[in-house]
Amino acid sequence: MVEAAIITIGDELLIGQTINSNAAWIGKELSSLGIEIKKSLTIKDEREDILSAVDEYFKNYDLIIVTGGLGPTRDDITKETLCEYFDTSLELNNEVLSRITAFFRERGKEMLDSNTKQAELPKDAIVLENKNGTASGMWFQRDQKILVSMPGVPYEMKSIMLSEVLPRVSAIYNVEGNYYQTLMTQGEGESFLAQEIKDWEDRIQKDGLSLAYLPSPGVVKLRLSSKRGSQDDPIIESYFDELRTRFPKYVYGMNGEHIHEVVGNLLRERNQTMGTVESCTGGGISGAFVEFPGASDFFQGGLVTYSNELKVKMVNVKEDTLLSHGAVSEQTVKEMAMGGQKVLGVDYVIAISGIAGPNGGSAEKPVGTVWIAVAYPGGVIAKKFLFGSHRKRNLEKAKLYASNMLRRTILKIDELDLPEDDNENSFV
Amino acid sequence: MVEAAIITIGDELLIGQTINSNAAWIGKELSSLGIEIKKSLTIKDEREDILSAVDEYFKNYDLIIVTGGLGPTRDDITKETLCEYFDTSLELNNEVLSRITAFFRERGKEMLDSNTKQAELPKDAIVLENKNGTASGMWFQRDQKILVSMPGVPYEMKSIMLSEVLPRVSAIYNVEGNYYQTLMTQGEGESFLAQEIKDWEDRIQKDGLSLAYLPSPGVVKLRLSSKRGSQDDPIIESYFDELRTRFPKYVYGMNGEHIHEVVGNLLRERNQTMGTVESCTGGGISGAFVEFPGASDFFQGGLVTYSNELKVKMVNVKEDTLLSHGAVSEQTVKEMAMGGQKVLGVDYVIAISGIAGPNGGSAEKPVGTVWIAVAYPGGVIAKKFLFGSHRKRNLEKAKLYASNMLRRTILKIDELDLPEDDNENSFV
Repeated sequence: MVEAAIITIGDELLIGQTINSNAAWIGKELSSLGIEIKKSLTIKDEREDILSAVDEYFKNYDLIIVTGGLGPTRDDITKETLCEYFDTSLELNNEVLSRITAFFRERGKEMLDSNTKQAELPKDAIVLENKNGTASGMWFQRDQKILVSMPGVPYEMKSIMLSEVLPRVSAIYNVEGNYYQTLMTQGEGESFLAQEIKDWEDRIQKDGLSLAYLPSPGVVKLRLSSKRGSQDDPIIESYFDELRTRFPKYVYGMNGEHIHEVVGNLLRERNQTMGTVESCTGGGISGAFVEFPGASDFFQGGLVTYSNELKVKMVNVKEDTLLSHGAVSEQTVKEMAMGGQKVLGVDYVIAISGIAGPNGGSAEKPVGTVWIAVAYPGGVIAKKFLFGSHRKRNLEKAKLYASNMLRRTILKIDELDLPEDDNENSFV
Repeated sequence: MVEAAIITIGDELLIGQTINSNAAWIGKELSSLGIEIKKSLTIKDEREDILSAVDEYFKNYDLIIVTGGLGPTRDDITKETLCEYFDTSLELNNEVLSRITAFFRERGKEMLDSNTKQAELPKDAIVLENKNGTASGMWFQRDQKILVSMPGVPYEMKSIMLSEVLPRVSAIYNVEGNYYQTLMTQGEGESFLAQEIKDWEDRIQKDGLSLAYLPSPGVVKLRLSSKRGSQDDPIIESYFDELRTRFPKYVYGMNGEHIHEVVGNLLRERNQTMGTVESCTGGGISGAFVEFPGASDFFQGGLVTYSNELKVKMVNVKEDTLLSHGAVSEQTVKEMAMGGQKVLGVDYVIAISGIAGPNGGSAEKPVGTVWIAVAYPGGVIAKKFLFGSHRKRNLEKAKLYASNMLRRTILKIDELDLPEDDNENSFV
């Protein structure tokens, strides 16, 4: 298997001024080619650090991708340092010089001496054209080992990777390799799932697959990977199918799909419509649905009835209901959902009311208590959730749980059999 | 100077499934204490890789921060591997066990064997309490060298860092270091601002301060830093005051404040209320206001009139207006805003209608065209924006521009003098 390492150069990455999205992007692209990323290292723009990192990784791995430190300013020393490491020197590349000159002319800008210097490139490196900037990429090769250096500006780096680096890498290594598929689940925590699928996990290991749990608030992804490449796809698919059958409540999609997309597709296929009536989430649920293109196919609109007054005025919640049960209650969310169905003229309505926190809780209804109802053609169901004490996270989880509840209702998975408490805070 | 290294463990980081925001956050926190981050390394969840990385960094640096690999599942081996490196063993920690037990009891969940194992901790490490989960942090100290291991779930890691790690680190190393203050601006790009404040930038440099532009979609932060610590605070404050006076349209807050919080506070102080009528953002604007505690003080509710039918039915937009001007027009958003004021019974209403993309644009109204109106007591204003072609970023920017427009209206900064084109695509 081809082994790679990523070296990203820049103080701004170390002090957290910039999040290292380059490393993630490169990692994703290379591993989709079946190349195994062994390490990703971020270092300062300093000669010794660059030399020692390059030396260590070039000895141990097949492919090293370096980004950063190629700009026109004095603190950019990557090019010189790589020349030192590979024992070569710079020479003016006329083709690159005329490209840089044209780059400035087209933009009506004056070219500086420092930009001319960017056309000086290592004698025995292949120059990788940068269509979006003035710092060229460089490809050093010694026997079977490769080091690629590119600028750190994401869109310059990406264009060099896509047009120059990835095609060469695939051709040279003729790679297939690691193959991943990910199953998306919503509604149960990592440890609950691990216990429920213990037998399954034993079996996949015997088949040479490996499993990783990737939890985030409200969602746990199960990633199966195979060292044998995509030929294992049917095996992976049949293992996933088993989980789909066993846990239809939780399994909602594949490979990073969002639950809102999945619900949207279900409604689109069925030519049905939805709307929302939100209290505590204040529009966050409807907002999550319209983040995806084409939401107007199924999403008609919503009401944010944050105040009690508007719950009565806009969706006809009975004042009596609010007085006797409170705004955060089964009765209220059911009336909100049914009222919304009428006002909005849609097939399904998600209604929600809860105590997002940090204040407003009581012994009976602590912070994190959330009631969600789904009105469907012919009825309404409601369910109570107890999330945590963190406001934003509660709102985030509410969006996911509510949308999965709608998915389950559309698919008639467990209309009247929603578990009393299917949230787990260990993975919040 | 204290030197630190960060080790983040997890395949999902290497293959780019998760962007390494933990490393950035830790880097930012440590460097704000004046600690120098020398390296940041991401490795796989494998014994040899963990051992060799820990060994190299523990020899060379003062402080090592490790995240990841502490979950309850079988693939989590960090704790055992660190025990091996530090030549110690695990023992059951009863205090932690009762915390974990309580954690599950409070959530009405059954505790599993794998969770009990999480209470087994290294004999000679200090246990760092995790208030948000079941994996404790661990603090290993040998002479003057420290290694801290924490779970990789960002909010668990952050809470352990803030409550346990950073206070101990500051006390031990007695660090003060760099002092930062940040001014928040909305509505202009980095290059426009740089040009406008050139004179100011020259002066702050003469005073020994340094400036960084931190752009993100819709917002540019100006960070002033001083090497002399917080004694420079009055100087920084007077420089910021100058910008507040010169650019009241753009400067809205300090140190990471959100524009929605700022607007909320203005309304709260004035005892006024607001609501929203949203089309393209689909509830995202109202959702952004309720993300902050206490929104019910000023936020009454909103309407998501995604379909034209609901624009007519819910807020009395005239069918004629939609026919002759279209849903994305000055006339429509003004009617939406005024209709909303009446229906919701509030002082201010933000109304918005636009083409978020990627489809639905025309020559006259390309993707990214967004009309925003603000109805205030006594009138309504509207303004057209042209954002980019990226749907999610358009929705994100729309939230920020709309809220700043409300802020400017409340403060009567430029009620009738909103610039025709105050967005800049260079930082979209």
